[in-house]
Amino acid sequence: MIETLKTYFAQQRDQHIEELKDLLRIPSVSAVAEHQPDMIRCAEWVAAALNQAGLEHVEIMPTAGHPVVYADWLHAPGKPTVLVYGHYDVQPAEPLELWSTPPFEPVIQDNKLFARGSTDDKGQVMLYVKAVEAFLRTQGSLPVNLKFCLEGEEEIASKNLPPFVEAQAEKLQADVIVLSDTQMQALGKPALMYGLRGLAAFEITVEGANSDLHSGLFGGAVQNPIHALTKLLSSFHDENGHVAVEGFYDRVIELSEKERESFKQVAPDPDKIKKDLQVDSLYGEKGFTFYEQTTSRPTLEITSVSGGFQGEGIKPIIPNRASAKIACRLVAAQVPDEIMDAVEAHIHANTPPGVTIQLDRQLRGNPFITPIDEPVMVAAASAYEETFGVFPVYTRSGGSVPIIEVFGRVLDAPVVLLGFGVPGENLHAPNEHFHLENWDNGLETISRFWLKLGATDK
Amino acid sequence: MIETLKTYFAQQRDQHIEELKDLLRIPSVSAVAEHQPDMIRCAEWVAAALNQAGLEHVEIMPTAGHPVVYADWLHAPGKPTVLVYGHYDVQPAEPLELWSTPPFEPVIQDNKLFARGSTDDKGQVMLYVKAVEAFLRTQGSLPVNLKFCLEGEEEIASKNLPPFVEAQAEKLQADVIVLSDTQMQALGKPALMYGLRGLAAFEITVEGANSDLHSGLFGGAVQNPIHALTKLLSSFHDENGHVAVEGFYDRVIELSEKERESFKQVAPDPDKIKKDLQVDSLYGEKGFTFYEQTTSRPTLEITSVSGGFQGEGIKPIIPNRASAKIACRLVAAQVPDEIMDAVEAHIHANTPPGVTIQLDRQLRGNPFITPIDEPVMVAAASAYEETFGVFPVYTRSGGSVPIIEVFGRVLDAPVVLLGFGVPGENLHAPNEHFHLENWDNGLETISRFWLKLGATDK
Repeated sequence: MIETLKTYFAQQRDQHIEELKDLLRIPSVSAVAEHQPDMIRCAEWVAAALNQAGLEHVEIMPTAGHPVVYADWLHAPGKPTVLVYGHYDVQPAEPLELWSTPPFEPVIQDNKLFARGSTDDKGQVMLYVKAVEAFLRTQGSLPVNLKFCLEGEEEIASKNLPPFVEAQAEKLQADVIVLSDTQMQALGKPALMYGLRGLAAFEITVEGANSDLHSGLFGGAVQNPIHALTKLLSSFHDENGHVAVEGFYDRVIELSEKERESFKQVAPDPDKIKKDLQVDSLYGEKGFTFYEQTTSRPTLEITSVSGGFQGEGIKPIIPNRASAKIACRLVAAQVPDEIMDAVEAHIHANTPPGVTIQLDRQLRGNPFITPIDEPVMVAAASAYEETFGVFPVYTRSGGSVPIIEVFGRVLDAPVVLLGFGVPGENLHAPNEHFHLENWDNGLETISRFWLKLGATDK
Repeated sequence: MIETLKTYFAQQRDQHIEELKDLLRIPSVSAVAEHQPDMIRCAEWVAAALNQAGLEHVEIMPTAGHPVVYADWLHAPGKPTVLVYGHYDVQPAEPLELWSTPPFEPVIQDNKLFARGSTDDKGQVMLYVKAVEAFLRTQGSLPVNLKFCLEGEEEIASKNLPPFVEAQAEKLQADVIVLSDTQMQALGKPALMYGLRGLAAFEITVEGANSDLHSGLFGGAVQNPIHALTKLLSSFHDENGHVAVEGFYDRVIELSEKERESFKQVAPDPDKIKKDLQVDSLYGEKGFTFYEQTTSRPTLEITSVSGGFQGEGIKPIIPNRASAKIACRLVAAQVPDEIMDAVEAHIHANTPPGVTIQLDRQLRGNPFITPIDEPVMVAAASAYEETFGVFPVYTRSGGSVPIIEVFGRVLDAPVVLLGFGVPGENLHAPNEHFHLENWDNGLETISRFWLKLGATDK
């Protein structure tokens, strides 16, 4: 069946690319108010394309911001339901003078399609639309049930999507969520990003006397809040770079040998990092590589510290307060509030006499992981391998993309990040482009993925 | 002889107080440019008063700021030379509406003379002028050689006096320097302040990578300058509040039992301090009282700390730099640059991998001490005791008054702080006043002091 589909893709390629170009001509810049009409026009264009591909229940659903475009096809009873997430908004194109060709006039050069949004994310969204079209035109049906949830605010932090997903949880219910908004390792080298870190961020404030004190008249006899703070902060790590807060690692899922082996294929060269950052050595938790430290281990980083006179010169006072902000990057299955509970207990156990210490919880984001041995991950890896001729590498990122965790948690389903972008395609920068060999490979990988998912009953 | 002098003081009292009132009517506010003519007028008035008292070589000596008034009487060969320091400038009188009577219209109420500068320092300066007058009118000579050095910039940090003293070291050469610009313990309770702390202040800067880093992508694998800084800062003190920098205490002159005993008479009540500062406990170097900690022990206080994003909310970065400012209060015979050398060595020994740390030396002030068993101190204590009927208490201050150390060091002579102010006289505040019983006691104490010094050959 895959050959029939590939033949269809080849025959229709020029037409499909022309349609993608039409989409790319709409300057759907979500961040800029004057593009509001373009946002509506773009949502309508996408809705029409979904409809034309054969999807049903196409709907432009309002949010507090730009609308979500929904569509589905639910005629594969007993088969899994796949929710496709993507976004139709783009980054601003400025600075325009750095573009070789106008950002909203798509041009193909060297088999690369240049336009704002070509790789992020209109090109990748259209792969799914055209895969649906191919199945329905050549087979009359899809191997799985499908739902589309395409938002218009990804480039402005998806601020209205979490409440939308919460509110529409029943409508969006699926067995697997697929996002195509990430990158491969390199051209020809597919990657499956299966983990992102979460976040627990908070502020610690130490208060001493009821006012700043003259360091000559009181220095040496009252607790200095900066001393108390630095003692406390320095107690958060042991000499091996481990976080020394009791219970911090309790829920951490340790890396398997398979994962650690796989990371060796993608781990950056520490010498290159040292050179790039101009530091004489790296420093992290003992027993883990740079890649493991930054993607698969939880951290506690003091992101800012402040106390005393912040102007020029030295004002010899003992300040009455000092504070620090801390961001913990979390890994599955750590829970942000549990981590902050643990830190709070550590603070209580380490508060010196003469000061009080408060912890103010500010940001929470759950870590995300889809274990690589989940059936959907095995199917995705296999689809990649059959298409590209090489097995994908498994990657994790140290950053946090809250919406991914929201989908997984609210819909209680695994999330697969099936990226077709490649590094160097200038997303968010001038001369953004999409390698068209990944247009072809993407269509094939997605089709294979659906066929594999459809081969198993739900 | 003292009875003759006391009779003279009593007979001339009204006339002397009227002269002091004349001096107090001159608004010699050194901080305010529009009072420049008043500053000149005041210097001329003081010069005339010194001349009228019988002093010689009266001179208004220019500085880069307000002038110094000099005078001497050097006709006691073989006897010690006493240099009298004081100042003729005053603090601004504002806020004027809080004064019960106008600040530059002296008024006597309840044997207190109300006016700006009455206790700080014109009243105390005039004691010396009138003591000279009394000796010369009743005895025809002074028991010691005398030099006066009266400045016009004490209230603006004496910024031009150190270079003046350096340049005029030969002219100012003396065997003892007497300052009357300090306070007794209370009315009727004289005090001899014999020690002030010095200062070594510096900034420590930690630098890591060549730019701020994303805490998600690099967190856990590179040295965070705030972590390095807090580790370093927390290493400066041990668990007993001692400074843990090697060599820090090497030159410290330990307190004698006599000093520790004497301090018990002046030491403040720790419970009152806790209440005033609203802290549940005090905290300082173990083995020393609050008074000892704040006056006679060296300290290392972190006065400010800064690193990372200082705005509202949490910006999850690893900053590329962090810094702290530190003020060490020093006691005799510590040397500021030696202390900063020791801290620098401590830093080098405690610099973690992945960062560089710099120390920038910013302020230096030597500690001051005149041992209480120095003959001039014994004479001063005795003069106080004979006048007031009680032995003075020995006190130290934790602050730094650099000019005192400059006099002692440049002229290589002991400094005696013979204060006649008392707490509560509102110096630097509205309704400043001077207790006139200390006018009488001051004249007697100074006369007795000179007589005692003159009783010994140089």
